[in-house]
Amino acid sequence: MSSFDGYEVGFDIPALPGMSEAEIQTPCLILDMDALERNIRKLGHFAHTHGMRHRAHGKMHKSVDVLKLQMELGGAVGVCCQKVSEAEVFARAGVADILVSNQVTDAAKIDRLARMPKLGAQITVCVDDLGNVAHLSASAQRHGTVLNCLVEVDVGAARCGVSGPNAAVALAQAIDAAPSLRFAGLQAYQGAMQHLEHHADRKAKADVAIALVRTVVSALQAAGLPPGLVSGAGTGSFQFETESGVYNELQCGSYAFMDADYGRIRDAEGHRIDETQWDNALFVLTSVMSHPLPGRAVCDAGLKAMSAESGLPRVYGRDDVSYTGCSDEHGTLSDPQGALKLNDRLRLVPGHCDPTCNLHDWYVCVRNGQVEALWPISARGKVF
Amino acid sequence: MSSFDGYEVGFDIPALPGMSEAEIQTPCLILDMDALERNIRKLGHFAHTHGMRHRAHGKMHKSVDVLKLQMELGGAVGVCCQKVSEAEVFARAGVADILVSNQVTDAAKIDRLARMPKLGAQITVCVDDLGNVAHLSASAQRHGTVLNCLVEVDVGAARCGVSGPNAAVALAQAIDAAPSLRFAGLQAYQGAMQHLEHHADRKAKADVAIALVRTVVSALQAAGLPPGLVSGAGTGSFQFETESGVYNELQCGSYAFMDADYGRIRDAEGHRIDETQWDNALFVLTSVMSHPLPGRAVCDAGLKAMSAESGLPRVYGRDDVSYTGCSDEHGTLSDPQGALKLNDRLRLVPGHCDPTCNLHDWYVCVRNGQVEALWPISARGKVF
Repeated sequence: MSSFDGYEVGFDIPALPGMSEAEIQTPCLILDMDALERNIRKLGHFAHTHGMRHRAHGKMHKSVDVLKLQMELGGAVGVCCQKVSEAEVFARAGVADILVSNQVTDAAKIDRLARMPKLGAQITVCVDDLGNVAHLSASAQRHGTVLNCLVEVDVGAARCGVSGPNAAVALAQAIDAAPSLRFAGLQAYQGAMQHLEHHADRKAKADVAIALVRTVVSALQAAGLPPGLVSGAGTGSFQFETESGVYNELQCGSYAFMDADYGRIRDAEGHRIDETQWDNALFVLTSVMSHPLPGRAVCDAGLKAMSAESGLPRVYGRDDVSYTGCSDEHGTLSDPQGALKLNDRLRLVPGHCDPTCNLHDWYVCVRNGQVEALWPISARGKVF
Repeated sequence: MSSFDGYEVGFDIPALPGMSEAEIQTPCLILDMDALERNIRKLGHFAHTHGMRHRAHGKMHKSVDVLKLQMELGGAVGVCCQKVSEAEVFARAGVADILVSNQVTDAAKIDRLARMPKLGAQITVCVDDLGNVAHLSASAQRHGTVLNCLVEVDVGAARCGVSGPNAAVALAQAIDAAPSLRFAGLQAYQGAMQHLEHHADRKAKADVAIALVRTVVSALQAAGLPPGLVSGAGTGSFQFETESGVYNELQCGSYAFMDADYGRIRDAEGHRIDETQWDNALFVLTSVMSHPLPGRAVCDAGLKAMSAESGLPRVYGRDDVSYTGCSDEHGTLSDPQGALKLNDRLRLVPGHCDPTCNLHDWYVCVRNGQVEALWPISARGKVF
């Protein structure tokens, strides 16, 4: 029985460093380290040459190790994440600049958030409600800390955020006036358009978002509260925000790993972005565990190994087989040429990387067919 | 900061025993213990009065504590689960009768499976491949253990399993002849029909499955290998298998918790089964964390708090609000009457209980508005 630090391979962990890829227990997540490093360097280079800050979205990978690579190789200025408990994972790991790109309104969560600067991190949080400003301020005062606040503007995603300049200015003024809070700028992420297939459709939505952000920035400037940060952008849109001249911080996350849903979207020339921009670095490694009929095989990765709400996974590097159905613990494979046999392994590109990563405890880092490292998915399950 | 055994509320755990429901950190899974006990007693009574064994499906709840309740209150004879690592969790907890209702073909997994009887459990596994029989036998011989084998028959789900009597008899003979293996019967679960809304549609599929099982049983009897167990059935079909006279073991899982997808199916009288048969015992507890516009609110439970591939959750006990959209960490709520305010709590019935439970680390057991216990989701993430 192979074990490591008390962890058993095949029970707690999928592999040990030094193993060959063929020995990894499936299903599990593997990271192609060469592809991951290329993606991270590429976005880092883009941000650097365009004078943009890149705040890596930690909600996607939930991993201190991936974030450190984004900071070291890609020049990321820090992390954003969606939950207080996620932020605590990064703060405890020594990350100095953390944005909770979300509202925090529950009293116990506000208390944890307001303590967090004591861990040595600068903590920023989004706000879209006046009453929330008072609660954040009271809690930060109580703990003797300072919280940075971004006013969140709904730029088209129809989720959180204020709708326009008047509400944004009112919130910024309330933050500015509140003890222990600092008005730090705007959160303006258009999440609903990131996965539109066609570049022109994404651009049209981005143009609307950017125009709204511009009016909000003008109104804040007129009120004497120019925003320091204007933060947003995702893997499907970051060129637009960069060209806008009004955003100064990117929050891309999925670019580092890619997934099948993002892989379908097209660049300005009509090419899929997983062919022209980003390499697939994240895979669900799976094995064939039943082959009852010549044309049909069954693999060991289903809904508990990947999220399927954004579509089925793509079988990587194989045109001869396809993943056609997903149940809880099984994937059905179409194998018209009878190419597969029992225990054959496939790399699947999951439909949606964020909720897929959140299912697993470990990334198996692979380079040249060998396991280079095992990285914990440090904030897996941190939903609070 | 509330902590318990080193766990911090709001970081590691959602609640402490003794807390009121209002203090539970969201999002998290709560179990209505009264409802859970009613469901468990009800199926136990049904199985007992119909002379059926009930083997509770542990893949759904992945919890030793829930299983123990099913054995104590519901007379469950043991557990079935889908993965070797899940089976190990139950075996280490002292469960004596464990069925891996799935194929185990990887060499390392076969090795772990064949060791498991040494923990004191009777281990049964499904087989649909002749070569696999030899591998299982060799491994059990090596470890000096005995593995029970069920021949899996594909009774309509088009996933694993042999197609008909000839292949089933050939496999049963191979198992019977193999050292250290024991032919224990048939696995015949029709998973693809469980969620068909109409009783007549489910019955039609069940009739096909039962007819096939009958021919397989006859062929086995003619070959001198009558199956001891004929196991299968789910929450959407168990009455049919029970009435068949040919099945003798039920594998229902979802009945204990229920979910929105099962809630939609109808009994013979056309009533929803979550109104006439089973109470909702599992909920995702969520809080409103943004209310940017009068008609729209946003709660803190999205794709990382529940699985959405089988549809969106239902807001329990409320006709005035509905859950209309799910993103990674957010749920969008339609609130046409403006009934919700910030930090209001809702109970959501998740679309699909199995992959939802697998996202969380804890069940918060609630009775009379108080936290009665905190149960670990012992096999959460056990995908190997």
